[in-house]
Amino acid sequence: MLNLHAPTPTRWLAQVSQNLEALLIDHAHCEKKAAGVAMNLMFAYVDRVELVRAMSAIVQEELDHFHLVLDLLDRRGIRFRKIPPSHYGERLRALCSKQEPMRAVDRLLVAALIEARSCERFALLRDNLSDAELANFFGSLFESEARHHSTYVRLAKLFASADCVDRRLTELAVEESSIIAEGEPVPRVHS
Amino acid sequence: MLNLHAPTPTRWLAQVSQNLEALLIDHAHCEKKAAGVAMNLMFAYVDRVELVRAMSAIVQEELDHFHLVLDLLDRRGIRFRKIPPSHYGERLRALCSKQEPMRAVDRLLVAALIEARSCERFALLRDNLSDAELANFFGSLFESEARHHSTYVRLAKLFASADCVDRRLTELAVEESSIIAEGEPVPRVHS
Repeated sequence: MLNLHAPTPTRWLAQVSQNLEALLIDHAHCEKKAAGVAMNLMFAYVDRVELVRAMSAIVQEELDHFHLVLDLLDRRGIRFRKIPPSHYGERLRALCSKQEPMRAVDRLLVAALIEARSCERFALLRDNLSDAELANFFGSLFESEARHHSTYVRLAKLFASADCVDRRLTELAVEESSIIAEGEPVPRVHS
Repeated sequence: MLNLHAPTPTRWLAQVSQNLEALLIDHAHCEKKAAGVAMNLMFAYVDRVELVRAMSAIVQEELDHFHLVLDLLDRRGIRFRKIPPSHYGERLRALCSKQEPMRAVDRLLVAALIEARSCERFALLRDNLSDAELANFFGSLFESEARHHSTYVRLAKLFASADCVDRRLTELAVEESSIIAEGEPVPRVHS
């Protein structure tokens, strides 16, 4: 369903379980960035009413999640602040075509893969964290990430044939998995 | 309450009443841009939790309004599309300081003045349009524009003293009124 080429390596869960504060702050930033990505797509393709309405709904939902994470940070006395992000998003964005309409397809599919990876990882956190509040919290976000993934893939098909989108999704999923396999030393949602 | 230096000149109502289709399409773009401005402020000052939460709420509210305008366009068989904007927003943004913290103050006060002018004009449309559905629609948006105005002025005071913010608001309001007094040939929310 999620079109991921390879599962998260086992080292990630150990990495973030020992650094939950950094994971949560990064998670807040990820929700904010997800809202920003959807807003940028809305501005870039404002003539496509189906896309505009879907992006607008995703912006609102990501901001709801952002608030939920801020509330969680508040309850735990963790100050929300800037922290260096992982390079995952930047490396995926660098794979996007510069030429329309493939640029639109790529931007939507990269967003789809980020949602898919978040979804897979939220399930890992739900199933493995000993902190019950956090496990439930990540579990509660699983469904919307999966739904956003499907929305992004569907919208990509406004800009190219279904075959072309599916082929490109497979290519990008291979790249995404290789970025994930490399990993990063900082504990982040996408390290 | 709205801190405007001068009221809308009478020519504006005649200009837009004769071009309601263009006014409505531009209004949809304005709601979308208002959401974008709040999102950009959220990203620029992400360490200020009070600002972040307020901006996030404004993004969501502006997008709700954007959907309401898209629905209205649909009901009237008007296609939402790109149209050249007025130069109002661009001219106001050009007045913003390049140096922090005054840049933050200016960006927030410019947003406050745009909300104030929209609010004043929505009241004019509410009171003067013969099309009852449109008059009611603009009337229904009045309260939130006034509230956003106050929120932006309040947030500016996170970055400078109340005196400094009030002085700068007066200066910017004078500039805003002179841009409005000049007017523009295209019928727009801020022409």
